[in-house]
Amino acid sequence: MEGTIRCGANYVPLSPISFLERSAVVYRDRLSIVYGDHVKFTWRETHQRCLKLASSLHSRFRISPRDVVAVLAPNIPEMYELHFAVPMAGAVLCTLNIRHDSKMVSTLLKHSNAKLLFVDYEFIDIAKGAIEIMSKSTATMPQIVLIPDSGKLPAVPKSEFLEYEAVLAMGSLDFEIRRPDDECDPIALNYTSGTTSNPKGVVYSHRGAYLNSLAAVLLNEMRSMSVYLWTVPMFHCNGWCLTWAVAAQGGTNVCLRVVTGKGIFECISRHQVTHMGGAPTVLNMIINAPAMERLPLPGKVTVMTGGAPPPSQVVFGMEQLGFDVCHAYGLTETYGPGTVSTWKPEWNELPLETRAKLKSRQGVNHLGLEEVDVKDPVTMKSVAWDAKTIGEVMFRGNTVMNGYLKDTRATQEAFKDGWFRSGDLGVRHSDGYIELKDRSKDIIISGGENISTIEVESVLFRHPAVLEAAVVGRPDDHWGETPCAFVKLKDGYELSGDELIAYCLNNLPRYMAPRTVVFQELPKTSTGKTQKFVLREQAKAMGSLPSREKSKL
Amino acid sequence: MEGTIRCGANYVPLSPISFLERSAVVYRDRLSIVYGDHVKFTWRETHQRCLKLASSLHSRFRISPRDVVAVLAPNIPEMYELHFAVPMAGAVLCTLNIRHDSKMVSTLLKHSNAKLLFVDYEFIDIAKGAIEIMSKSTATMPQIVLIPDSGKLPAVPKSEFLEYEAVLAMGSLDFEIRRPDDECDPIALNYTSGTTSNPKGVVYSHRGAYLNSLAAVLLNEMRSMSVYLWTVPMFHCNGWCLTWAVAAQGGTNVCLRVVTGKGIFECISRHQVTHMGGAPTVLNMIINAPAMERLPLPGKVTVMTGGAPPPSQVVFGMEQLGFDVCHAYGLTETYGPGTVSTWKPEWNELPLETRAKLKSRQGVNHLGLEEVDVKDPVTMKSVAWDAKTIGEVMFRGNTVMNGYLKDTRATQEAFKDGWFRSGDLGVRHSDGYIELKDRSKDIIISGGENISTIEVESVLFRHPAVLEAAVVGRPDDHWGETPCAFVKLKDGYELSGDELIAYCLNNLPRYMAPRTVVFQELPKTSTGKTQKFVLREQAKAMGSLPSREKSKL
Repeated sequence: MEGTIRCGANYVPLSPISFLERSAVVYRDRLSIVYGDHVKFTWRETHQRCLKLASSLHSRFRISPRDVVAVLAPNIPEMYELHFAVPMAGAVLCTLNIRHDSKMVSTLLKHSNAKLLFVDYEFIDIAKGAIEIMSKSTATMPQIVLIPDSGKLPAVPKSEFLEYEAVLAMGSLDFEIRRPDDECDPIALNYTSGTTSNPKGVVYSHRGAYLNSLAAVLLNEMRSMSVYLWTVPMFHCNGWCLTWAVAAQGGTNVCLRVVTGKGIFECISRHQVTHMGGAPTVLNMIINAPAMERLPLPGKVTVMTGGAPPPSQVVFGMEQLGFDVCHAYGLTETYGPGTVSTWKPEWNELPLETRAKLKSRQGVNHLGLEEVDVKDPVTMKSVAWDAKTIGEVMFRGNTVMNGYLKDTRATQEAFKDGWFRSGDLGVRHSDGYIELKDRSKDIIISGGENISTIEVESVLFRHPAVLEAAVVGRPDDHWGETPCAFVKLKDGYELSGDELIAYCLNNLPRYMAPRTVVFQELPKTSTGKTQKFVLREQAKAMGSLPSREKSKL
Repeated sequence: MEGTIRCGANYVPLSPISFLERSAVVYRDRLSIVYGDHVKFTWRETHQRCLKLASSLHSRFRISPRDVVAVLAPNIPEMYELHFAVPMAGAVLCTLNIRHDSKMVSTLLKHSNAKLLFVDYEFIDIAKGAIEIMSKSTATMPQIVLIPDSGKLPAVPKSEFLEYEAVLAMGSLDFEIRRPDDECDPIALNYTSGTTSNPKGVVYSHRGAYLNSLAAVLLNEMRSMSVYLWTVPMFHCNGWCLTWAVAAQGGTNVCLRVVTGKGIFECISRHQVTHMGGAPTVLNMIINAPAMERLPLPGKVTVMTGGAPPPSQVVFGMEQLGFDVCHAYGLTETYGPGTVSTWKPEWNELPLETRAKLKSRQGVNHLGLEEVDVKDPVTMKSVAWDAKTIGEVMFRGNTVMNGYLKDTRATQEAFKDGWFRSGDLGVRHSDGYIELKDRSKDIIISGGENISTIEVESVLFRHPAVLEAAVVGRPDDHWGETPCAFVKLKDGYELSGDELIAYCLNNLPRYMAPRTVVFQELPKTSTGKTQKFVLREQAKAMGSLPSREKSKL
């Protein structure tokens, strides 16, 4: 409109960098990070350390805007600092999964063209192996910076590598940070880590990271100065964007190298933790912690769970311990959480089982995401809100990735018709909440019937002896596929495959009950998701069920 | 980065319209608006009503993108609906102050070139008067739509004007809303209403409104499904952006035509209000409500106050009644709240008086605003954080206005050197919090000393007999100016001017104590701000103090 101007006074590209700069003033003397017995920083210190590190990246390592800086580390303070220092140098942070082997790390370093690699001392051999592999084929390899464990004194012996604190010390507080010219410029690169064997480089923008962080603050109901315990890996969607979100609210980051029930209870009690997160596996770890490791909660602790729908006994178990469980759903492509099973107060009076069912739904889009829908992937029509018609879950909004690095075709496919296609299949309930039925590639088609493996798994989970379960299709000459269950029992329980099948037949339509049960450890991604493609291979190798067993059907 | 794409799947211009669309799904069956005994809507209904109204604006009234639609109404449901319906038609909402007279309304309608004017029945005569004035000079005049009071049945008798519900009924649910092409497009026009006599049209953007709404949610700690009582006029900075913020969190809007202590307590009790806001005057109204009108609070009620620093006894009084007071500061140009006196838990143990002092500071920038600073307006250097050096308070960020409508020169002046210059004078404390000392035009210069009228007023407020006080400069032959206090006493109290001056001399440096005291009602803007320019005129008319009285100095 006439008389208006766009200038530095009224327009600043959105970036999580602003969260840190603000907290350095507003929460300057409050704790930003605590780790073990020795590491403690205030927000003012964290800001200064990030500034120096960014300066060093720029002037000593010639990191330019849009260069990629990779890191291979668990949830330690340095990992947190890199989430700000790298973007402050204008560069793109690529967090690598610490479960990767040298070969995978070399593949990702090459694909991302990373200039620098920060490595936690525990993973230095993996990194060295990756560099060795790269040295055989690539001219340019990233330089390694070693992160000794700052929480353990004395430090590890002098190594052949430059060390983190030395790099930081080379930086200057006068550094003028490199803000993005355009808020859609990249801030992070996250390789999809898990349920398929073919990783893609998901590009996040400053704008998306800013908005998803605020959405994460709101869906976690994280007040100013909350205390956040790091049980979600920061290398997973940048800790579901909570790395940045905690800075937005001037909270305290409680770092934790190894996630154990004991460690969780100790941190909660010692630091008055208010918020944390984790896949249902982590929640299971809490529930199944031996009584002597459990400590009373100092106050309300909100736990955001995701990665898989929380089985009802996990929700109950956590609530009995006094935790508040909040269930979110999303993908790497949606910066982690994209929907949340928003809880309505009127549901508080419902029976236990109904409440758990409601909570395990994927729910509705959070405030940062424009829209989530369940659509027919061909006609793009929304499915009826009848809780029955299955369609593909699709997303649209500012918290959807920029695309897949160096894979325009995959990006175009993912964004076909203006929606991000998740590959997840689900239904929509009459209240608008979505519920996943399966990954499109996980669904079992048996005798022409679609079987949702999630539904079968949820019945298995309800059996008192079952700790974990995953169902995949086993090839079948007659039916095409039959459900095959991989199960891990709780300690001290015994159960036969036939007993478990009989239980399923009592609780599921006949065609949905597993025909095969295998008791074993389940292969997992580092974030606790079951790697179904491994199990699918295993089931494939079994071949068709002998006809004798088929007669039971 | 290579492989990425910007498209509808991952980019949507930020707009508060998204809040309503999301709440229509997520909170569909929950209450959006309640008003009196008869009006109740759900979010789904509110969405549909706004859609129909937008459709009607577009197709029946030919409202095009960027046209201005004005409204003259108190905090009634229709006023709330217009905050979404008008932007959904692509148009710009101009909310007019209901304390304006016909002349002022005509001036603003002409300046804004409003095409339509929605008018609450109580203000229809003002509107008619304005149109009559305009008819003498302008060819184009806005069409009037009458809003009868939907909360009162039966409705007022049939009038000569089109009525709100009839206009809404003309609309269609099929309407495709006109989203902004660019998120910096205008959404609202707010005329500065108050402390100066020369109103300017402040232009808000969709982006700024979106971001300030989220900041308002966070600084009010407004959880999902909160209940908000409308005691801040929606025509003031769009209710400090809470019109949109309540939709963001799917809260309930409790509308209230007339703000009284009795009405406030009744609404809180009846609707389980969790949040509200108001200038210190409104807080005073609550504190001074007769015992028989007071009702116990059903739970925690957070009150955001602003417009003037809350005197300590107002903070105490509210907290004694169980309210949680949160103090924010800003200007029309910063979409209302821009800073907040963020409360640190370590302050809880401080003495009462110290706590009130801390809370009355203007504080630090909220999450939506990039930066607030106190600067020398000439050199643009930040002042020392010494709580003494006075400078001008300046803002920078996405929640600063687009500019002043049709006044490029004023916009350029306001944004000189890349900061929005507030015209307020303040200091910065060692913890980074800012504290206002005065408006640059309010400061009194007496014998070469700067006197902060706010400091003098805060001493006056502490006197048990004083209900309200405002201090301005009275011209003086010898000193240039001397402080002149206008005071309203509490009911039942008596006090002489000399007694009050003696009290001030005991509590202030000699040169700061008022030399003149006038007992009277204070002239106010509709938002409870004292109109100092009126008092300044009055003091000017008094002329210099006689020398006999001066000898007392």
